[in-house]
Amino acid sequence: MSAPALATPADAPILLREMAGPVAVLTLNRPAQRNSLSEALIAELHQALAGIASDKAVRAVVIAAHGPAFCAGHDLKELTARRSDADLGRAFFARLMSACSAMMQAIVHLPKPVVASVQGIATAAGCQLVASCDLAVASEHASFATPGVDIGLFCSTPMVALSRNVSRKQAMEMLLTGEPVPAERAREIGLVNRVVTAGTERDAAIALAQQVARKSAYTVKLGKEAFYRQAEMSLADAYQYAAKVMTENMLARDAEEGIGAFIEKRTPTWRDE
Amino acid sequence: MSAPALATPADAPILLREMAGPVAVLTLNRPAQRNSLSEALIAELHQALAGIASDKAVRAVVIAAHGPAFCAGHDLKELTARRSDADLGRAFFARLMSACSAMMQAIVHLPKPVVASVQGIATAAGCQLVASCDLAVASEHASFATPGVDIGLFCSTPMVALSRNVSRKQAMEMLLTGEPVPAERAREIGLVNRVVTAGTERDAAIALAQQVARKSAYTVKLGKEAFYRQAEMSLADAYQYAAKVMTENMLARDAEEGIGAFIEKRTPTWRDE
Amino acid sequence: MSAPALATPADAPILLREMAGPVAVLTLNRPAQRNSLSEALIAELHQALAGIASDKAVRAVVIAAHGPAFCAGHDLKELTARRSDADLGRAFFARLMSACSAMMQAIVHLPKPVVASVQGIATAAGCQLVASCDLAVASEHASFATPGVDIGLFCSTPMVALSRNVSRKQAMEMLLTGEPVPAERAREIGLVNRVVTAGTERDAAIALAQQVARKSAYTVKLGKEAFYRQAEMSLADAYQYAAKVMTENMLARDAEEGIGAFIEKRTPTWRDE
Repeated sequence: MSAPALATPADAPILLREMAGPVAVLTLNRPAQRNSLSEALIAELHQALAGIASDKAVRAVVIAAHGPAFCAGHDLKELTARRSDADLGRAFFARLMSACSAMMQAIVHLPKPVVASVQGIATAAGCQLVASCDLAVASEHASFATPGVDIGLFCSTPMVALSRNVSRKQAMEMLLTGEPVPAERAREIGLVNRVVTAGTERDAAIALAQQVARKSAYTVKLGKEAFYRQAEMSLADAYQYAAKVMTENMLARDAEEGIGAFIEKRTPTWRDE
Repeated sequence: MSAPALATPADAPILLREMAGPVAVLTLNRPAQRNSLSEALIAELHQALAGIASDKAVRAVVIAAHGPAFCAGHDLKELTARRSDADLGRAFFARLMSACSAMMQAIVHLPKPVVASVQGIATAAGCQLVASCDLAVASEHASFATPGVDIGLFCSTPMVALSRNVSRKQAMEMLLTGEPVPAERAREIGLVNRVVTAGTERDAAIALAQQVARKSAYTVKLGKEAFYRQAEMSLADAYQYAAKVMTENMLARDAEEGIGAFIEKRTPTWRDE
Repeated sequence: MSAPALATPADAPILLREMAGPVAVLTLNRPAQRNSLSEALIAELHQALAGIASDKAVRAVVIAAHGPAFCAGHDLKELTARRSDADLGRAFFARLMSACSAMMQAIVHLPKPVVASVQGIATAAGCQLVASCDLAVASEHASFATPGVDIGLFCSTPMVALSRNVSRKQAMEMLLTGEPVPAERAREIGLVNRVVTAGTERDAAIALAQQVARKSAYTVKLGKEAFYRQAEMSLADAYQYAAKVMTENMLARDAEEGIGAFIEKRTPTWRDE
């Protein structure tokens, strides 16, 4: 699980995919570029997520990274190169921001839990990637920042995810100062769930994902979708919606099996196992 | 205030009601069933709240429980028994979820403050009950969980209340792992207000409720209602609404008395005392 | 930076304005009245903010206070005096609440960051003032309360800002009990960003404001506006909006300069410097 040397072969895949039991581990593999989210990497991530969505063998996902940085956000050299386009880059920038936002929302809408494994600094869209995951495990040496303000490019899309994870003044401090937040403080403010000894974050994230993967896939899918939907509703609407979800859930085979197993004190067997 | 033996007489009331000065203490009294929210208990709670709403002698409410558990959520045996209904239980499940959601919202809409006194584990709808109260005091030995995912029945209605108390990743961790959160961590993430020495939580909750009960009932009613209404508005709408509430409040007798007493350095006398 | 004697001359300005480099420091200067927000002081604050909005020399704002209290909320004597109006004060109260809410929203809408420097107790509308700022630095001796409930006047307008800073149960505890929250606890719950040694809060707030003032004014303006706008949107709408903001930002001169400087490892020069 140690980080590879930064000299990754030029033809190495920029996104690695491996299985750890029922958990798909997606590893950002552009360490020399601090795993910045080039257009190609965004597309690979989105494609991998789309494949996972319909792959019954995958019950949970970990997003990890190789190298010292988790993810440095957008690829500034790629962005800058497009300033020489006829439209000064406008079409490319719009396409890239749209593609990146769609990929982040694909994490939220994925019917399987997604756990970030953060081994180093997660900045800008890298911080957004962590905030977009359902759960996050961080190395004690990880840190989090939205430093776009320092280069004249406010972290506007990252803040959409960040401000839905942490409180207003904490988000504003990160966005306006650009200063990094250490792992333990990130846990206190709600950006990550757990902080672990450096070097164990990948295993810890996989273990957490495997823990959720042992639950009923149907139930996790139903619940995750309902969580993000009800979060945007009024209390009355949220209850009306959730009560319907709960009723459908009760009538499903996995609830019958799960509740029965609980009453009979035996281990349940889920449908998709 | 010690917990009764679990062998409660079969004809014992499932919800106890007593007064502690102006505070109504509602005590869940199905200790052998871990105070699970059977249809009957939900109905009793809702009825008790409805009675309290219009009872001028009651100025605040504490919801407590007897036995080692605070509340274990829905009564799984009751749910399972209805699978033999002609419709496999659908009508019952829908009615129950709707009744439970209505009872939880009755706490939110009650024109008097409601304080949870949590002496043991609060799971699923039991955790929702705590989250639905305005305030919560927990024993250092209390814990909180939404473990429906372990039995194939995602805590969808509990998450409506939970996710309005704690931040997104913290809610997701509870919902996806089902793992219990100890009292002190529950305080850190905003699910309870205070953690006290085991055995003192009931007295502490009553003392907190009595503290609020000494305020103007009119003012508390006005403020509590406004709190939950403005929470669902945009900033501009919330300010327009709250400015109107404040103006009406200023013109009310209790504000005149309260401000006068403050300026004259004397104790105010509220209208409904 | 020591507090002046409470015996401020009767003709002393109630709001002091000075510059600390590019930072405008607005100091509430009614120490003998605990800096309560009289109609005149609200108007002066609003006017000062309006001036700052279009003043290119000002890149950030600090709101501080003289005397032992930061701000005690509305001026209760002023309010009470208007009870002898023909309409018992209704028109005045409505006008005052509306003016105060407009001033608080002017802080939110100001295209420059606003940092509160809290040296003492911030109560009611004083607590709202802190909550309305983008960032807040507090003395270790500062405290925060919404004690309107104690005088029959619920802190309804303060809670609009407070409940957008801290979680629900924490806000409810402050609103229903009226009890003060010490600085360190205020930091834990998200009401202030930093707690510093007593007597250094003003310098620390100015230093924080100056840090943000060194960023591109265009970028900070764009980002701050987008932050509060997206906070009221659904996730999908927020991303669509933020992606557009980000694209416009990329095409702006300061992003070109900032990204270029970053790649070339030099200090950027912003347009409005």
